Amino acid sequence: MKFTLNCSLIFSKGLEGVDIQGLLRESSAVLAKGAPRGEGARIARSELKDNRLDLMITSGRYARPHDAVFRLKNFLSEKLGRKYRVGIREIRADRYRIEFDVEREPKKKISMPFAKRIEFDGKRCVLELQNLDHEFLRGNYVDRMINLINEKIEKQHYEGKGEHWELIWQSKPKEPVWNKDPSREMERRGWIMHRGRGQWIFGPVVTKIMRTMEDIVVEKLLNPLNFDEVIIPKAVTWDVWKRSGHAKNLYGEIYYLCPPRSRDPGFWEEVTDIYKITGEIPEKLIKEKIRGPIGGMCYAQCPPFWPYLEGKTIADESLPIKIFDRSGTSMRYESGGIHGIERVDEFHRVEIVWIGYPDQVKKLHGEIVEHYRKIFNEILDLEWRMAWVTPWFMAQEGLTGFDEKKEVGTIDFEAYLPYKGSREESEWLEFQNASNNGDKYPKGFNVKSQGREQLHSGCTGIGLERWIVAFLAQKGLDPENWPSGFRKRLGELPPEIKFL
Amino acid sequence: MKFTLNCSLIFSKGLEGVDIQGLLRESSAVLAKGAPRGEGARIARSELKDNRLDLMITSGRYARPHDAVFRLKNFLSEKLGRKYRVGIREIRADRYRIEFDVEREPKKKISMPFAKRIEFDGKRCVLELQNLDHEFLRGNYVDRMINLINEKIEKQHYEGKGEHWELIWQSKPKEPVWNKDPSREMERRGWIMHRGRGQWIFGPVVTKIMRTMEDIVVEKLLNPLNFDEVIIPKAVTWDVWKRSGHAKNLYGEIYYLCPPRSRDPGFWEEVTDIYKITGEIPEKLIKEKIRGPIGGMCYAQCPPFWPYLEGKTIADESLPIKIFDRSGTSMRYESGGIHGIERVDEFHRVEIVWIGYPDQVKKLHGEIVEHYRKIFNEILDLEWRMAWVTPWFMAQEGLTGFDEKKEVGTIDFEAYLPYKGSREESEWLEFQNASNNGDKYPKGFNVKSQGREQLHSGCTGIGLERWIVAFLAQKGLDPENWPSGFRKRLGELPPEIKFL
Repeated sequence: MKFTLNCSLIFSKGLEGVDIQGLLRESSAVLAKGAPRGEGARIARSELKDNRLDLMITSGRYARPHDAVFRLKNFLSEKLGRKYRVGIREIRADRYRIEFDVEREPKKKISMPFAKRIEFDGKRCVLELQNLDHEFLRGNYVDRMINLINEKIEKQHYEGKGEHWELIWQSKPKEPVWNKDPSREMERRGWIMHRGRGQWIFGPVVTKIMRTMEDIVVEKLLNPLNFDEVIIPKAVTWDVWKRSGHAKNLYGEIYYLCPPRSRDPGFWEEVTDIYKITGEIPEKLIKEKIRGPIGGMCYAQCPPFWPYLEGKTIADESLPIKIFDRSGTSMRYESGGIHGIERVDEFHRVEIVWIGYPDQVKKLHGEIVEHYRKIFNEILDLEWRMAWVTPWFMAQEGLTGFDEKKEVGTIDFEAYLPYKGSREESEWLEFQNASNNGDKYPKGFNVKSQGREQLHSGCTGIGLERWIVAFLAQKGLDPENWPSGFRKRLGELPPEIKFL
Repeated sequence: MKFTLNCSLIFSKGLEGVDIQGLLRESSAVLAKGAPRGEGARIARSELKDNRLDLMITSGRYARPHDAVFRLKNFLSEKLGRKYRVGIREIRADRYRIEFDVEREPKKKISMPFAKRIEFDGKRCVLELQNLDHEFLRGNYVDRMINLINEKIEKQHYEGKGEHWELIWQSKPKEPVWNKDPSREMERRGWIMHRGRGQWIFGPVVTKIMRTMEDIVVEKLLNPLNFDEVIIPKAVTWDVWKRSGHAKNLYGEIYYLCPPRSRDPGFWEEVTDIYKITGEIPEKLIKEKIRGPIGGMCYAQCPPFWPYLEGKTIADESLPIKIFDRSGTSMRYESGGIHGIERVDEFHRVEIVWIGYPDQVKKLHGEIVEHYRKIFNEILDLEWRMAWVTPWFMAQEGLTGFDEKKEVGTIDFEAYLPYKGSREESEWLEFQNASNNGDKYPKGFNVKSQGREQLHSGCTGIGLERWIVAFLAQKGLDPENWPSGFRKRLGELPPEIKFL
């Protein structure tokens, strides 16, 4: 690695009578501090013009120039302040050149904010930056840019590769009752109605089916395993997504939440007047009158719970923490077109979270999977399978790979949809997953155990729309054909609303 | 009323050889059509310059100039098109002057989009518009502007007047267990945690209390009265608020929902890069990359159900329709500061809706109020009162007034909060309401009955946060002091999560 920083220190006044070269020589110990002998930052060139000291600072891996320049600043401030009453007003950098080796050769061009030039010769990268301010140098942006270049190259190599997928278990084939698309049929019967973009109104009949599924989850999983209900906000603020890692990605799938700039009716009078006169909503004017997004609507459901634990040390007697939330909708801006209720912009999920020592988390993960297996086999009588896949959080951050030990990672639950074609050739519906997320969240939100051992956590989201699609696609819409364990819990379906 | 429109018709070519004055005389029957004799629109002045015909059209109340000019356009198009192959390319209006009487004298200045001048002499108003296009004239904007001027004056007179409030019933005073603010105490104990701006995480203990209240509503109100659950979207699109009337107001209290302009990760790469380099979310750049709002998060809970019925005729056997929704959160941008959980930006509500013939709706409204009375008296043992108030939808649209017959309107349920001071001097908490909304929604969404008789509807929203505040403010946080009917249904409180 080779760093070359051309920068200037601007002093509060001219340095007449100061032996600046002497001071710079004297500073060499400060600049080298912490680096192996001879490998620290050094001043390769210096020139004083009135109150401006132009410098070229170079280094290898250690005591990099963007750090060194602040060490030098402190050193000179102390030396000059007391004796000459001179301060350093500003640090500017005209040019910063970094030469380093990347882990793999890039496959195509890489660009990035702040970078004037990124060029490669095999694995050798030259990164050039210009006109950097104090904040840029101080914020350690350079190291993050180097990491980001490696990350981008890594992504180029992943491109086109699927996520990891490894079958764990598969039920026997089951004879489906029909082979129709249940969304279409439910829509035809008026059980559901499409709204907006991937939002649906669920009428009384399908809501009863959905709530019965939820009751089964409570009876057969949450109660036996002693999970307690909590209520997690559905507005997710940026601080949460910074800590959960979602801020690294996902911008294309968020429904952003923007508050008004003011609550004052006078501030909105023009908007209401235009609406009352024209009958049209002045959307452009409204966009001017709202603030930038404070975050967005719930995407993954558990991250906004974590502030409840953030920065705290949890007593052993409370571990493992076992909670679930079913207090509201999640929203995702999904790819266009209507896909029935198996891919929707607004959906309903029971989110289950557990937090504890690694063995507690692993054990619960296994128990939850076993409880699901019983529900799907004994009550819903589904044709389904489980696969070990790229952990969802890596998939969401655009990464692939998985834990060979199969401790940290995600199990996807997939159901066969007869209306999509043969078992072998069609895509199965992922209707469920269950993840051991390892230390990701306790680390991200700085949650500590009493014994100082690293905490782990897991989560599993039950997408109720997808359970319904999996079930009805195999079993049809007539309760006569539904398994008895489900019918017993369902009771009578409510009457449909009849239209003329 | 006196209308004077100065406008021009632009023809596709010059009108040499056309007896335009003859045609204009001939058009007078068309302009007067539908108006009492001598009161229709008339052409007060006309001048042809090459391919432009300048007109001054006047009228009283009938056949107003902005209508008349299109009648004239059709008349001339027919006469000129066939014989001279001349078409009318454009209608422009330089100036439109409307003189009319308003219902009450204004108390201060009124301004409005599109209006060049609004002046009053007592109740006489002169409204002047300039440079109007085809869309403006065609869209009947003028009539809406006249209505809006009257509405604004009406509001000036209401200003400062409170909403209507009339006590219907009041329970006996009950000795409160304590006089502390339950939100503060719950926060201190870690039962709840404040997040963002008026959002809260509810831990296991308080969630159990909330769900017990919900169960009581199901057991003691929804089941006995045969309400069926439905699931209503929580993203509310503009079309809904146009029909529900909310688009006339409320912009200052909405959390707006903005989708991304694109799902493409490449489109968002600059945002993710900047975040990864600086550690800060570039909110300004994000605002550029999102669309204008498609609407906002659920404010009133029932409007987005109505599209399920929109434009339909409901069979008598399905009436009254009785449904409820508890599928997600509502959001309101509330006034600043933290008010505990009694005033929050994100809250949880069971919304109950009924639709039927007027007598069915009135009867159900009464039955629901009786069931509430039993719950509050016999299970929650609250000190509370009911008042007949300005209907919520009028209040939300900034209107006051109420139905003297007390059929259409809202009952507010209010609870005494001992921590706020004496019964007489402090404000009670509105923790509940129940409304007969009359024909508002069936008309707004064009929902018809089999017998063609006008349908009515009612709704009642149970704000669970407010039930909790009302209950705990009177009964304290120790279950020992809670009424037995509530404790029986609650069972054991779950353990709190313990922190070191």
